Amino acid sequence: MSERPLLVIDGLQYAKWSEKIFREMREGGVTAVHVTISYWEDYDETLARIAEWDRRFESFSDLIVPGRSAADVRRAREQGRTAIIFGAQNCSPIEDDIGLIEVLHDLGLRFMQLSYNNQSLLATGCYEREDPGITRMGREAIREMNRVGLVIDMSHSAERSTLEAIELSQRPIAITHANPHAWHAARRNKSDDVLRALGESGGMLGLSLYPHHLKDGTDCTLRAFCEMAARTAELMGVESIGIGSDLCQDQPDSVVEWMRNGTWTKARDYGEGSAKQAGFPPQPAWFQGNRDLGALAQGFRDAGFGEADVRKIMGENWLDFFERSFGPAP
Amino acid sequence: MSERPLLVIDGLQYAKWSEKIFREMREGGVTAVHVTISYWEDYDETLARIAEWDRRFESFSDLIVPGRSAADVRRAREQGRTAIIFGAQNCSPIEDDIGLIEVLHDLGLRFMQLSYNNQSLLATGCYEREDPGITRMGREAIREMNRVGLVIDMSHSAERSTLEAIELSQRPIAITHANPHAWHAARRNKSDDVLRALGESGGMLGLSLYPHHLKDGTDCTLRAFCEMAARTAELMGVESIGIGSDLCQDQPDSVVEWMRNGTWTKARDYGEGSAKQAGFPPQPAWFQGNRDLGALAQGFRDAGFGEADVRKIMGENWLDFFERSFGPAP
Repeated sequence: MSERPLLVIDGLQYAKWSEKIFREMREGGVTAVHVTISYWEDYDETLARIAEWDRRFESFSDLIVPGRSAADVRRAREQGRTAIIFGAQNCSPIEDDIGLIEVLHDLGLRFMQLSYNNQSLLATGCYEREDPGITRMGREAIREMNRVGLVIDMSHSAERSTLEAIELSQRPIAITHANPHAWHAARRNKSDDVLRALGESGGMLGLSLYPHHLKDGTDCTLRAFCEMAARTAELMGVESIGIGSDLCQDQPDSVVEWMRNGTWTKARDYGEGSAKQAGFPPQPAWFQGNRDLGALAQGFRDAGFGEADVRKIMGENWLDFFERSFGPAP
Repeated sequence: MSERPLLVIDGLQYAKWSEKIFREMREGGVTAVHVTISYWEDYDETLARIAEWDRRFESFSDLIVPGRSAADVRRAREQGRTAIIFGAQNCSPIEDDIGLIEVLHDLGLRFMQLSYNNQSLLATGCYEREDPGITRMGREAIREMNRVGLVIDMSHSAERSTLEAIELSQRPIAITHANPHAWHAARRNKSDDVLRALGESGGMLGLSLYPHHLKDGTDCTLRAFCEMAARTAELMGVESIGIGSDLCQDQPDSVVEWMRNGTWTKARDYGEGSAKQAGFPPQPAWFQGNRDLGALAQGFRDAGFGEADVRKIMGENWLDFFERSFGPAP
């Protein structure tokens, strides 16, 4: 169809970053990745993560560049590099200070989840028993995130908080990494109500390749994954889906333990895992890392998507969303 | 009755601390005061507040001493000084780290509210639209506060969170400054259900002298206040009530604005006040400050309390509660 090579964008990764992985991004033809810089990190710790990225941008300037706008992503594509877009999986970087939303946007943050598994100051996480919706501070934060162009991400939030965030936000929001609950009833996957509201509001879903979000887990086939994508496109509209692999390439199991427990408990929480399977689950054979991202396109074609739609899902939808979302409110 | 002078303890103050006020505490015969050191302050900021108190303890060692135990309070009484007991009106000093509960207890913190008006990481505040109860981290925090002997204070929390805190806590909790909602329907005052559960569990209510918590506000009479105390004693048991004046002596109005708004909103919240009455409300004529605390005893006598009960309300109940609460769990 088009003569241009496929645009590949991944809506979420948290890898143990290294030159090896950046080279694999290039081998996989990956033009942009939304990377997590904070889970439980507060403001100061988030600045330290940004400084680490600054060093990587300097050391590996032939491979990666900062991605703060759709234009940065287009430029990275021209230059054969990968644009790195900063995101936080929790609102901990702003602590209890609404003024830090603009400060962190100035520092390049482009996505922020309103809650991560637990109740936050802004919204409820998907592991709480009950979900009263967006808090008083949450309403203020949504308004401010809309104003500066920091995307609201509800991947780890609970149902009602997510529906309210879609409703309250004046700009489309994202669920950067999750799948439909109807396909695989994981706590992190999303109801049809949420997905429909997300699609109708112009938001984006990044389809997750994390085994706990996949039907049959590690044994999920590429075909099953892509057929799920086809049904999701029917539900939400093909313009609202992309990839959000949730890839944690090369991370040791201590990292998933920290993701789940942070410093909020003295007991041990297993999150989506269990005492028997406490670590990272093994990835499916067909998706081991960044080199395999481009190859998902053939899976989508085999599941019946036309070439234009394959291009949308593989990256064009995300690029369009970045264009609409990363700048100040019109 | 007893030959000893009346023991006077105030269950909450947040004054603009000065030598003048410490002298007034002595003139009022005040043996111990639970003072707020944090509203929105995080851990580092709370340490700065503690360092400020350390300087005051050094400068005014003839007037005030640190109060970390019931024994400290008894010693202060013998020495004719006022024991200062540290408390936080929010859980912001522990940020998102359960390990800071023990650290702050080591530094002298003896009370901590689980939430202040808004949703916190632990519980819901009384100004939120809905209250889903104690959060996942809140359950862990209650267990840890019980273990080390940091008193759970629910003065600014919402109804269900308060009832759940009473239920979940293995040790009695406190509502250091509030009155019955049935007497004056302020949002900060507490339902009979809460007060009954608090009394049955061996907890303490500090009766508030803050005008927004008083029937007829600034015009509330000492008689009306003390008759309310008599009805509250019938509801909860006289052993469960004390004074918690919520006195903000000498504070400028900028402080109440900060209490209400912290850094959580860019708009302006008036809390218990209003745009027309945004500042601190004037205190009733009969309770202007620390010098007037001791004189409340006569009001309780006039409302029909016997001398033994007057002594309990004026200070002995708080001292007994400190004895049971400030050490490690038995």
